[in-house]
Amino acid sequence: MTDLITMGKQAREAAFVLSQLSSAEKNYALQIIAEQLEAQSTIILAENAKDIALARQNGLSEAIIDRLLLTPERLKSIANDVRHVISLADPVGQIIDGGKLDSGLKIERVRVPLGVIGTIYESRPNVTIDVASLCLKTGNAAILRGGKETQYSNKILIEVVQHALEQANLPKYAVQAITDPDRALVMELLKLDRYVDMIIPRGGAGLHELCKQHSTIPVIVGGIGICHLFVEQSADQEKALPLIENAKTQRPSTCNTLETLLVQESIAAEFLPKLAKALAQKQVKFHADPTALSLLQACNADVTPIQEQELRNEWLTYDLNVVIVKDLTQAVAHIREYGSQHSDGILTESVKLAQQFITQVDSAAVYVNASTRFTDGGQFGLGAEVAVSTQKLHARGPMGLEALTTYKWVCMGDYTSRK
Amino acid sequence: MTDLITMGKQAREAAFVLSQLSSAEKNYALQIIAEQLEAQSTIILAENAKDIALARQNGLSEAIIDRLLLTPERLKSIANDVRHVISLADPVGQIIDGGKLDSGLKIERVRVPLGVIGTIYESRPNVTIDVASLCLKTGNAAILRGGKETQYSNKILIEVVQHALEQANLPKYAVQAITDPDRALVMELLKLDRYVDMIIPRGGAGLHELCKQHSTIPVIVGGIGICHLFVEQSADQEKALPLIENAKTQRPSTCNTLETLLVQESIAAEFLPKLAKALAQKQVKFHADPTALSLLQACNADVTPIQEQELRNEWLTYDLNVVIVKDLTQAVAHIREYGSQHSDGILTESVKLAQQFITQVDSAAVYVNASTRFTDGGQFGLGAEVAVSTQKLHARGPMGLEALTTYKWVCMGDYTSRK
Repeated sequence: MTDLITMGKQAREAAFVLSQLSSAEKNYALQIIAEQLEAQSTIILAENAKDIALARQNGLSEAIIDRLLLTPERLKSIANDVRHVISLADPVGQIIDGGKLDSGLKIERVRVPLGVIGTIYESRPNVTIDVASLCLKTGNAAILRGGKETQYSNKILIEVVQHALEQANLPKYAVQAITDPDRALVMELLKLDRYVDMIIPRGGAGLHELCKQHSTIPVIVGGIGICHLFVEQSADQEKALPLIENAKTQRPSTCNTLETLLVQESIAAEFLPKLAKALAQKQVKFHADPTALSLLQACNADVTPIQEQELRNEWLTYDLNVVIVKDLTQAVAHIREYGSQHSDGILTESVKLAQQFITQVDSAAVYVNASTRFTDGGQFGLGAEVAVSTQKLHARGPMGLEALTTYKWVCMGDYTSRK
Repeated sequence: MTDLITMGKQAREAAFVLSQLSSAEKNYALQIIAEQLEAQSTIILAENAKDIALARQNGLSEAIIDRLLLTPERLKSIANDVRHVISLADPVGQIIDGGKLDSGLKIERVRVPLGVIGTIYESRPNVTIDVASLCLKTGNAAILRGGKETQYSNKILIEVVQHALEQANLPKYAVQAITDPDRALVMELLKLDRYVDMIIPRGGAGLHELCKQHSTIPVIVGGIGICHLFVEQSADQEKALPLIENAKTQRPSTCNTLETLLVQESIAAEFLPKLAKALAQKQVKFHADPTALSLLQACNADVTPIQEQELRNEWLTYDLNVVIVKDLTQAVAHIREYGSQHSDGILTESVKLAQQFITQVDSAAVYVNASTRFTDGGQFGLGAEVAVSTQKLHARGPMGLEALTTYKWVCMGDYTSRK
């Protein structure tokens, strides 16, 4: 039986050890984890095969099965991801700011690990190693709760990681997994505030909502992207077309993919036929408001009337909403009403309107003349991505290693009292 | 009847306006608020008198009544606090970091207001103006919920603020108060995640726990200080004594006051008599573990045996726990078990042990040879103090204006697509 209190205590103790390690010591453990993932390849793939067999038995789609599947190449790639984490700068110990105060006190804000991080995620087994290595790099203990579809894979992966930690003389409880598929354990984890400092859900909107509603631990809500681009009338239409194609079709299953294109009324009749033509070869299906509908129908585009609730859809497919707006004010109002504060952009030649859009749109990432697809830790130069936050506290947008840390105020005196 | 959904919508609309203001515009509104607090002095004091009369009727202690009481001088001081907020630097618009990425994208992290801030607090009417002015300065709308003991005072203060906002051509809903004392409204506020971005409780441990357990909005938990000082054997005892006196007695009702003194065993027999003598004139009452008890009794100190639960007490009085520990490891273990991650310090001459203490004690503020009384926004040079956070996400320790902001990623391209 899974005893979360014990796991929490063990994680807390491990975190105490991890918080005192040098970067070299943490990197050494990551090195062994990478090596062991390759060395134990046969047994890992054998356990993964059990998950795959179960998935087929349960009639899961080939697309999902492909996400669960590990191969020697994929395992090697996961090991190399760990090696990449080794190469990143360790934020722990960094001095954020500091100085000497009038009282004589020398004060510094020093970056330290958060402590214990709980993650709840779905399907893909690479997330297990991803989270474990990012937490370890930043001196945090991790309690992982993966989906039941990968329970055999996760179990063996955690065993390999724990064995590697022991080889590196680190506490194996630095990385633990709740492998019992009982869903009540998720609820219990969300209340484990005595031991867990942060919850990172990685999954669909339902999972994020569940965590927000029930967790007594701070939750990083995010990952849901209902992203907009507004084509303002001054935009260079020829240049806009490949950008929109990129935002919608480069990888539709990602959270930074475009869902709704807002087009200024004054250019709709000119622009929509070009758009239809540009996106036709990518099989984009339009969901259009009445004005856009007739314009798109006139050029034989694949289009249906839009339903209002579709404006709140994260499509994750080649579907694209098209809505005509009068001006920037209406575009901003639309984004504020239907967006998810993830990534939204304007295409314009006007510096003034660009500035207005940037100020008025309250999203994690705001774009001027660029594809929403850039919202990503790698693209933003963070080296890694723990999650994409669409809430506002602690971290917003792509979260790198820094988001797995907090700080403490370190104050040095000479037997100094407050006046 | 108080309709929180409507209040939330109004706050959200006001926040949209506030987020676009210049510092000058916000400061102008603060200036008018300060003036109006003085101009409306008569009516404010008349309403405050109703709260005071009710408090006497309900048999509240004179100490509490004094906290509720407004006088012309106190009101002037509150107005001057608003003027002080005007003088502070506005964090909104500050560029945290940025650069040009390989993709050609120019990227900046820009500080922006959080949006709508909910505050739940007890008794003192100055908090109403304090929170309102700090939120306004940072472009946030505020929904305030004060204690029922100051309902008349809060109501008139909010009216004065709202009137001043209108004079400054700003939306009056930028600052709203829930004045209906119905406690169910607190629970409702904690679930208003569609409109409120952050909850700041200001009150006792019970209030913080209530918010943590029930809020679906991120909560800044804090304010509870079970603070420790560890007198390591190498400490300069003569210099340590006034520091300990400062930490315990300068203002015992504050959260950064010392609760538990840990003394290394090897110096206990020598140090405790000095301690007893130094603190006797301040009427400090000791709660001592068995070893400390006999040493303190031997010098006729005012001492009783300690009960284990007293180690988790935030005394807020002249009571002081004294516990003998073998060494630094035991001191750290004690702090990790009984502390509240607020402020903890070591008194030592050893650089090595100081460093070990700093690394191992996981508190918002960690001190070497200094009084815990320094944990304060003003003392730390933040200019203002919104709250003291003892949780780890978003902000830790004293929170200044910056803690009322988040950031957005602003990305400028030239019709740039992701490769």
